[in-house]
Amino acid sequence: MRLVAIGGSDAGVSAALRARELDPSAEVILVVADAYPNYSICGIPYYVSGEVADWHNLAHRTISDLEATGTILRLDTVARRIDPVAHTVTLGSPDGSDETLEYDALIVGTGALPIRPPIAGLDHLGRDHGVHLLHSMGDTFAFMRTLQNRQARRAVIVGAGYIGLEMAEALTTTGLAVTQVEQLPEVLPTVDPDLGALVRAELHRREVNVLCSTRVDAIETACPGGQHRLEVRATGPDGQPVHLPADVVLVSVGVRPDTELAAAAGAELGIKGAIVVDGQMRTNLPDVLAAGDCAVTHHPLLGTTYLPLGTTAHKQGRIAGENAIGGTRQFAGSLGTQVVKVFDLVAARTGLRDHEATPAGFDPFTVASEADDHKAYYPGSHKIAMRYTGDRRTGQLLGLQLAGHLNSEIAKRIDVASTAIFNRMTVEAISDLDLSYTPPLGSPWDALQHGAQAWTTSVSRPSLRISSARSVSTHADHRPY
Amino acid sequence: MRLVAIGGSDAGVSAALRARELDPSAEVILVVADAYPNYSICGIPYYVSGEVADWHNLAHRTISDLEATGTILRLDTVARRIDPVAHTVTLGSPDGSDETLEYDALIVGTGALPIRPPIAGLDHLGRDHGVHLLHSMGDTFAFMRTLQNRQARRAVIVGAGYIGLEMAEALTTTGLAVTQVEQLPEVLPTVDPDLGALVRAELHRREVNVLCSTRVDAIETACPGGQHRLEVRATGPDGQPVHLPADVVLVSVGVRPDTELAAAAGAELGIKGAIVVDGQMRTNLPDVLAAGDCAVTHHPLLGTTYLPLGTTAHKQGRIAGENAIGGTRQFAGSLGTQVVKVFDLVAARTGLRDHEATPAGFDPFTVASEADDHKAYYPGSHKIAMRYTGDRRTGQLLGLQLAGHLNSEIAKRIDVASTAIFNRMTVEAISDLDLSYTPPLGSPWDALQHGAQAWTTSVSRPSLRISSARSVSTHADHRPY
Repeated sequence: MRLVAIGGSDAGVSAALRARELDPSAEVILVVADAYPNYSICGIPYYVSGEVADWHNLAHRTISDLEATGTILRLDTVARRIDPVAHTVTLGSPDGSDETLEYDALIVGTGALPIRPPIAGLDHLGRDHGVHLLHSMGDTFAFMRTLQNRQARRAVIVGAGYIGLEMAEALTTTGLAVTQVEQLPEVLPTVDPDLGALVRAELHRREVNVLCSTRVDAIETACPGGQHRLEVRATGPDGQPVHLPADVVLVSVGVRPDTELAAAAGAELGIKGAIVVDGQMRTNLPDVLAAGDCAVTHHPLLGTTYLPLGTTAHKQGRIAGENAIGGTRQFAGSLGTQVVKVFDLVAARTGLRDHEATPAGFDPFTVASEADDHKAYYPGSHKIAMRYTGDRRTGQLLGLQLAGHLNSEIAKRIDVASTAIFNRMTVEAISDLDLSYTPPLGSPWDALQHGAQAWTTSVSRPSLRISSARSVSTHADHRPY
Repeated sequence: MRLVAIGGSDAGVSAALRARELDPSAEVILVVADAYPNYSICGIPYYVSGEVADWHNLAHRTISDLEATGTILRLDTVARRIDPVAHTVTLGSPDGSDETLEYDALIVGTGALPIRPPIAGLDHLGRDHGVHLLHSMGDTFAFMRTLQNRQARRAVIVGAGYIGLEMAEALTTTGLAVTQVEQLPEVLPTVDPDLGALVRAELHRREVNVLCSTRVDAIETACPGGQHRLEVRATGPDGQPVHLPADVVLVSVGVRPDTELAAAAGAELGIKGAIVVDGQMRTNLPDVLAAGDCAVTHHPLLGTTYLPLGTTAHKQGRIAGENAIGGTRQFAGSLGTQVVKVFDLVAARTGLRDHEATPAGFDPFTVASEADDHKAYYPGSHKIAMRYTGDRRTGQLLGLQLAGHLNSEIAKRIDVASTAIFNRMTVEAISDLDLSYTPPLGSPWDALQHGAQAWTTSVSRPSLRISSARSVSTHADHRPY
């Protein structure tokens, strides 16, 4: 039994390790395009910020760790071609030679590529000019060289999604003046604008210059001898031209699945061009599975979607690894749970927002509320801003968005909601949960229960479950008791 | 419709407010034995420590807040007698007169009383001698007077449960030298000794003198003119006598239900002497409900038990209030979820431990493990100690215990487990949850999923879900991927 996994990031590594764990007799070959297997892409901003001093620490596992599992690593090796009929894969080795390997099962974990938006200049300006995209360790080293060699003082970040925001924090932390440009009306477009506005306020507080509703048209090299090396030209919310000088420009507007290899072999592509897989992560090609950012994702509430996330890549990879050697495990799905830290603020989401739920046939209703992270009498209390989304017909909890202070346990509160959605709980039943309480860390009704009760009160005025006729009216106070 | 609720703490207040919310035409009278309705008993340690400067802030709601809901408050009023046949309750008013009120429905929320252990001297030594039990605001004021009037420098705390531990922290914070005496072999006996030992280590680190396996025999007033006013005599683990000088002694060894009023009226008592109620919080007496620390508690895994907790009192009170005016809502049950902060350490539990699960018919198995609270490469990472308990036959998640750093989101991680147990998930399915990840706040597999995978690996060596015969063996590395 020979399993070849292509891709040295979360999906490929998880697949290889799971296969080796379950069947140590299996020959498992991991093909890695660069020399950095199992690196935490999500950790790059913290290396840039200096909070992680040694980039080697960004590896989830070292090469020795991986080899100790019995996995055979093929580093600096590019998978050039899959022949699904012959069950072979052709590898381009670091010495320039090609080699064709037979496989019994193949896992494609080629991941994603950063999107290059249609910005003039982006076609010919690159690393050497201080214009960067950031997705690999190689990209990271190039970016760090730019910062150092140019003694960069001004950065422009194009895009205000998770990575763009983390990079704004990282570069501000290292002393750069950062301008962040977002085409949409609010930063962090993966949450509702009310919460995005809280993130933007935190960016302002930390002196990041945030320009929303601003479209970047061109990146140009500035005139020789000028104070800055680059100029970003954009169009502001009222159509006015915006000129932004910069020493370094980072373009971070999302990713797209890297499917060239699989598609050339005949793999079916689906939503957003990602590789179509079934619940067991199998593609349409025999004995070829796919996992991670290159593949579609099952979503318990949406069906099939595309959600490139490290957590999902780990889970899908683990399942692909098991099934490649004979298993039949199903991927339980992703709810799109995400969290981001921006300076002292944390924003998180799980499940669906209104505009995502409606096309899926739900009757969504979103209620905003806020509650203390812990009893206000105990020092250090902060408000948590919540947006609960439930189905008006069934009461089912569809989604939750949170924003609050770094110390407000936002990340794990979103996980409570994710667990509730996974189990198809109603919003009302959140109040039945036996959640922990001590004054420094919570309230007798947790903030999550305050928010759930605010939703219930808004969507359906409180009513008694009674059989006898009785007049029932409502009370405006949303505070649970 | 007249509803009388007896008890001014969580259960009584929750009941009154819920009834008023659902039926503003109902006359709701709240009978409060002292002048401090709706005070956070759990907050008392933080007033003692000085972290809450003004005791008024310990009120969940002010008297005006409560009256604004239309609830009629009867402060400093003792409920003397219930006549369930006549549907009357006799109240002792602050002026010394008695008054008999008719009711349509009555809710007993008389709470709990601190247990007085059989310690010689405890029968005649009290507040005036510097010997205290702590359960009400009146107790708190008396305790603070002792600290001030005696210029107390040494405290002995009898008991190392939640309140005892919080008081050890509080008194240490104010500069007292604290000795904590626990009869059992380890502190915080509501978690397994492995985790209790971590709490004890934190107490030691903060210079609390902890004596376990030590039984307090007597509290005595010291000889006149001596340096200390009190002496605690105890027997140590090897039978050796232990003498502890003190200026103040706090006895905190748990509570028992306060049921005298209800029992005299004929209410049936059950486990630990608590008032028997059905799922709707109804007692055996017509139109008499009970809620909170005076009543038994439904537990989804255990059936009926006694679990005096503020969170439960809030939920039960809310349900009793709804049902008293005609509702039919069921209490979903308590899983005994608890969390305590002791200096910089947090310990939490939910569900069952081995010795609780076995009598309930489960086949429990507990696996200890630890994992990083967030990616170790990001500063400030700490290990979380976990004890997962699952049923060996079915794989059902029965309980989880956690201990870790104050910043490790222990409280909300235990809430994820509580939500999982509530939904009767298996331990293995914890790995299917889509939990949030960003390097400063988590890992691609959350610590909870590392712990679940450690349990699964321990209880049943990893196996493939395959139909074909294949040799499967195991791998010792528990780290999930």
